[in-house]
This record gives sequence, C-alpha cells and structure tokens, in this order.
Amino acid sequence: MPRNALYAQSGGVTPVINASAWGLISAARRHPQQIGKLYVAKDGILGALREELIDLASVPDSQLVALRHTPGGAFGSCRHKLKHGSELKRLFELFAAWDIGYFFYNGGGDSADTCLKVAEFAQYQGIDLVAVHIPKTIDNDLPQTDCAPGFGSAAKYLATTVRECGLDLASMSSSSTKVFVLEVMGRHTGWLAAATGLAARVPGEAPHVILLPEVPFEPGGFLRAVREAIAQYGSCVVVAAEGIRDTSGVLLAQTGGTDPFGHMQLGGVAPLLANLVKSELGHKCHWAVADYMQRSARHLVSGNDLEQAIAVGEAAVDFAIAGQRSIMPAIVREADQPYRWHVDAVPLKRVANKERAVPATYLSDDGMHLSTTGRAYFAPLILGEMPPPFEHGLPDYPRWHFSTVEKRLAGYEVL
Amino acid sequence: MPRNALYAQSGGVTPVINASAWGLISAARRHPQQIGKLYVAKDGILGALREELIDLASVPDSQLVALRHTPGGAFGSCRHKLKHGSELKRLFELFAAWDIGYFFYNGGGDSADTCLKVAEFAQYQGIDLVAVHIPKTIDNDLPQTDCAPGFGSAAKYLATTVRECGLDLASMSSSSTKVFVLEVMGRHTGWLAAATGLAARVPGEAPHVILLPEVPFEPGGFLRAVREAIAQYGSCVVVAAEGIRDTSGVLLAQTGGTDPFGHMQLGGVAPLLANLVKSELGHKCHWAVADYMQRSARHLVSGNDLEQAIAVGEAAVDFAIAGQRSIMPAIVREADQPYRWHVDAVPLKRVANKERAVPATYLSDDGMHLSTTGRAYFAPLILGEMPPPFEHGLPDYPRWHFSTVEKRLAGYEVL
Repeated sequence: MPRNALYAQSGGVTPVINASAWGLISAARRHPQQIGKLYVAKDGILGALREELIDLASVPDSQLVALRHTPGGAFGSCRHKLKHGSELKRLFELFAAWDIGYFFYNGGGDSADTCLKVAEFAQYQGIDLVAVHIPKTIDNDLPQTDCAPGFGSAAKYLATTVRECGLDLASMSSSSTKVFVLEVMGRHTGWLAAATGLAARVPGEAPHVILLPEVPFEPGGFLRAVREAIAQYGSCVVVAAEGIRDTSGVLLAQTGGTDPFGHMQLGGVAPLLANLVKSELGHKCHWAVADYMQRSARHLVSGNDLEQAIAVGEAAVDFAIAGQRSIMPAIVREADQPYRWHVDAVPLKRVANKERAVPATYLSDDGMHLSTTGRAYFAPLILGEMPPPFEHGLPDYPRWHFSTVEKRLAGYEVL
Repeated sequence: MPRNALYAQSGGVTPVINASAWGLISAARRHPQQIGKLYVAKDGILGALREELIDLASVPDSQLVALRHTPGGAFGSCRHKLKHGSELKRLFELFAAWDIGYFFYNGGGDSADTCLKVAEFAQYQGIDLVAVHIPKTIDNDLPQTDCAPGFGSAAKYLATTVRECGLDLASMSSSSTKVFVLEVMGRHTGWLAAATGLAARVPGEAPHVILLPEVPFEPGGFLRAVREAIAQYGSCVVVAAEGIRDTSGVLLAQTGGTDPFGHMQLGGVAPLLANLVKSELGHKCHWAVADYMQRSARHLVSGNDLEQAIAVGEAAVDFAIAGQRSIMPAIVREADQPYRWHVDAVPLKRVANKERAVPATYLSDDGMHLSTTGRAYFAPLILGEMPPPFEHGLPDYPRWHFSTVEKRLAGYEVL
C-alpha cells in the first residue's frame, strides 16, 4: 500500500529551491506504488504544525513546471526551531491523520536538525516514517556535500556583478571613485565572498580584496591591500562577507553607530568599510549591499546548480523508497575538469548542527584572494546558463495561489 | 578632403555606452570620404586636454566588436566641467594639431554642456568643427529625447530585481522579514525608481511603495503605506531613489549620523528607511543598495535600449556629415504598442543644463505607484533580451588595452 508524503521548504530561500521541489514531485509521480498523495506544508514546518497543507494533485501542471524557473520559496518557508515535546507530538499526530510515511524537509543546517529530530523521534517511538533532508543554502556551509544547491547560482550572480562593477569602477577611477565595496551574504562563512574571486581571470581584475569571516579583519592590513591595489591597478574592488569579524571575534556590523533618527544602526559592513577607506586613504568610495538580490537572482542561475537542485529532489524520493531513512542526498564530486558528480546518501547525524568553513587552502597566504585550489573548487559550480522565460521584458514568474486542504485535527497554535 | 574625428565618453557609465561607441565607429567607417581617422580621447575630455589619444585603426576588430556587449566605459570616462579660457583654448590646439573636424561627446547633461561650449567657441572663432552630443544616462533625465540610452537596461535590471526580491520576501513574510527596501540611483529624478513599478503586474505584487525625489518624503504617509501593504498583501517591497528629500527639500541621505569609527556617515537611504520601519512599526527589515550593480548589469540588457544606443552612435555620424552641428541625436517615440521610434536631431542648446523630472501623470495620486500613463511610457523601454557571450560561466567581457598615440603638443596639466 502506498503511503503519503509531506514536503516543506525551510530557511532562507534560493533561486533553485523550487527546482528541488520540482525534482521531488516528478520523481514521486514515477512511484505511485510507494508514494500516494504528495502534500506540501505551507511556510515550512509551521504549516505542518498548523495543518496548512497543499494537495499537489490540485495544482495544475503548468504551475508545477514553473517551479523549475522561479526563485523564492513557492510554498512559503520559515525559520523555526522545532521544539521537543508538544511540537514533535503534534507533528506526529499530523503524520498519523494524513498517513504520512515520508517526510522531506528542504533546507540548510537548521532544517537538517529539524529533520533529524523527526527521524529520531520516529525511531524511538517505533513509528514507520522515512525522513529525508534535501540540501539547500546559498551559504554553502552544509557539511558532507561537495556543495549545496543554491550556492552555485548565487556565486555566479555575484561573480558576474563583481566583473561588471569592476569595469564600471575602472572607467572613472583615474579622476573619481577609486574603491567599490560589495557586501555579500555569509554570516559565519565566506563561501560566496571567496567565489567572487572567479571574476578575476588575471591579477588586476576585480575583485582585488576579499574579506571573509574565516580571516580576522585587521584594518591596517586591509587598508594596505586597498592602497596597493590602487597603486598597481588604478582601482580596487572589495568584496566583504556580512559576517566579517575583528581580531577579537566581534562582528564588524555589530560595532554600533546611530542613524539620524538616533536609532541603533542596522548592520552593513559595506558602508562601514567605505567610510574607513574614505577617511583613512581619502579616496572616494562607492558601495553596494546585495542582500536578497543575490539569493533570488534566478535570471542568472548556474546550469550546474539548477541540475543539482533537481537531482537532490529526485534522489530524495529514490533513496526514500529504497528504504534509506534519516539521510541527506549529497553531491559527490568525481572530477573538477571536466566536472563530474553524482548524488549519494549521507547520514543526517553527520550533517545537522555542523557548519563547514572555507578551507584555508582555498585562499592565498594573505587570506584576501583565491588560491589555485580554491579556483578549481569553485569554477565548475557556476557553469552553464539557464535563463527563465521572459514576458514583457521581465522574467515570467508565476503568481502562486495554493489552496489548503480541509483540516482533520483540532487547531494548534505555534508559540 | 576627409577630416578626422574625436570621440570621448563622459560621466557615469552605462551598460550600453560602449554600444554607442560601436555604432559611431561602424558608421564612421562607412564614410571614408568625410571622416578620416577616428581618435578616441582616454578618460573623456581629460584625455583630450592631456592629448591622450587612441587611434582606433590600431585596435583589432575583435576588440571593437566586443564594445556591443561590454559594460563600463571602454575608453575611460570623467566628470569634468570644461573651463572657459585656457581649457577651451587647449582643446582647440588639439583639434588643430590632429585635424579634428568632428567632435563627438557621449554623455549626460553635463557633457551636453561641454559639447555646447565647444560648439559655440568654434562658431565664435569661425573654426570649422562639427560638435555632436551622443546621449547616455541611466538617469533618463535628459530633455528633448523620449528616453536616454542606458536607462532602459538599468530599468529592466531593477524591475527584474524587484520581482525576484519580492518573491523572496513573500516566502518568509508570514513569520519573519516583512519589509524589503531597495535603494536605486536617481539623485534629482526618480525615473529608475518609477520604472520598477513595471514589476507589479497586478496590485499586491512588488513593488508596493515607490519613493522618488519628485515627491517630498513624509514619514507618516510612508509608514502608513507600508502598514497597509503588509495588512493587505503580507509583505512590502519599497523602492527608494537615493535622492529622496523631505518636505523642506533636504536630502534624506544627508541628514547626518555617525558610524562606529565616529566618521560622518556616507549616504544610504535604504538603511535609514529600514531603521525607520523597524523602530516605528516593529517589523524585521532587509535592505539592499544596488549602486554600480544597476548601471553595469550588461548581462540583463534591454534589447530596445541596446538598439537605441547603437542607433544614436550611428546617427551622430550621419547628422555630422550631413552638416548638422551643435546637435544631439534624440529618440522620438512614434507609438507605444507596438513600439515604434526613430532618431532625430535636436539643438544642443535645448538639452544642456536642463533636467527632466518624472511627470506627475506617470504616478498614482499618492505618488507611490505607477499610473497607467507611466506604465505605457516605461513598458517598451525594457523589452528584449540580448545577453553577452559567456565563458567559464561568466560574461566574456574583454580586458581592454589601448595604447595612445605619440603626442604632438607640449604637455598640459589639468588643474
């Protein structure tokens, strides 16, 4: 007898998380003997707790196909740390009420933890449930996988941006702005910042200085690097991860400051670094903060990333019906060039609550550039273009409207 | 006897200013009887004053063709207000030394002024010189042309970004960030901010609030609009031009504030608005500042914009050899849909030192949305996709290396 499946999206979204959903949906359809109905929880685990479920059979195929090319989280997402006790209990009431035999959770490190809790609770209670975590994060900090779906696309977008802004900066640097600072995501790790190093084909091309959380920020060394780049190349593009820290481990973006209304200032290392350069070196600076732009730029997706996002969604189903439980489909790299990879299952225990930092070997000795080893790692991840369809000059992303099924359980309020 | 021509790029660059150079170069080649050598001044008018000239005959065609798809200013640009007296005199010494009969200056409002000065000086002195201004600005604030090359591409990029970030924001807005603020360029006019309104196909889609310099910023009305959008649609995307002003005309970005190092803070209305929303409405906010990203994003150029950029470069040559002087090739709109346009010559006098604001009729009554009239104006400008070639996963932009000709004049120092 087939059992039903529940899928949900979790954490910060990516340009390809919906592509993973598409991979999962199409694989599930190939196995009607094992998987009956496929439900999706609205807004991640919150929708599961609230019994806000979408029955995918009610969604027209034309909408589902668009999952492959639409950024954001089509079904809604959340950041919610699942509580032992009442919340886990509620979740399993839901699984029982809807005959859920497969639970697929699509997210980053925190979601892996949620997924692991669910799997362990099921095992402890002797409940027949397969829990599979589908990897996703533009931060690329998930362990046990060569890379995380979502990362390659964000990296491609940011490296493109760095190359383009570098040309812009160089145009007027002889008489005007000499420094451009781009702030990218990465609270704890600098994978995205490091990957922008791909934009520089030869020394002298942007980026000229890369700042990562893994390398303590030291104003003197930073300013020296900026000065040297300007002396040698005429201008300097700085890429800084939002999470860079000083030598005592304090986040630069958290060191205070007030705005004109007297409010504590929200983060933003880019304006901070630009101010530093301006006041210490006297150069005119421009700065940009990419924020959501970098994690939703589906218009410039990486073909390899998109393919892997779909593949982990498909593999989640394949592993699940093969009886694997409490695992994550991971990308295993076989070769750099030509790039070859496959998907393998890794135990969730080895993934949850662990963070993978950029290895020192990926960086130059001064920690501000990409090494040859780093370049070989990042290069294949941004390959291939798969633009979305355009309509009226803009990407033709659908306006999602999903209705939820009638509830079977009593109401439940998430605290 | 053919006379030589001098071309230069000026002001902030665009994704398609090099395409105008390409249009000019290819048109000049078609008229060897009229135009002899085509020189390019490095770094705009500064290179002309310093006699830093590039002889385009020395540049391989493979490099010249790449002008069509490369952002930034390939030949360098500057912001330099040409001084009457010594500088004008020097410029005409250069023209004489190199037998320059045609002067093409590619820029925005300030460059039109420079070009006009040159034209008037020639006329006053009885010197045979044709001066033509080639329009370019992502700000779209040039008068006498339906639109300015560069604008459509920046608008397409920003509208795409708004649509993408809107989907990202909506994914988690039920339990997390509810407001996203995108800061776009526009110091005096809000053309780019207004154009992002195209991203919303139906009410409720991003952007939900647009802030322009043309509409005085009033915190109460702004916060009310944000609150209403959240109440109705669950989240709110705000697009703010960098140059928005309060009701007494003071730039919001100039109202002060200090950073943790105690330095005066550089502008940035996005963090300021995000702080305002957070402290007054209590919502978590994200913000991005697009800065150079929006004016160098050649990877997402508008096909119509690219075509017009090439067309004004070609027309500059055609008008010049037809004996028109002191003019600017302008875009004349014939019809909105299907979009039809042609290039006409307008006197430079009507262009220089004038700024065109967004008409009130392009906006809704509250000044925070696009009207139907505005939509009809902007819609065709972002149509068409013409991505650059990609190599190794990134746009294949050349690394320019131009050598300058041997000087004929004594040195000259620009003060």
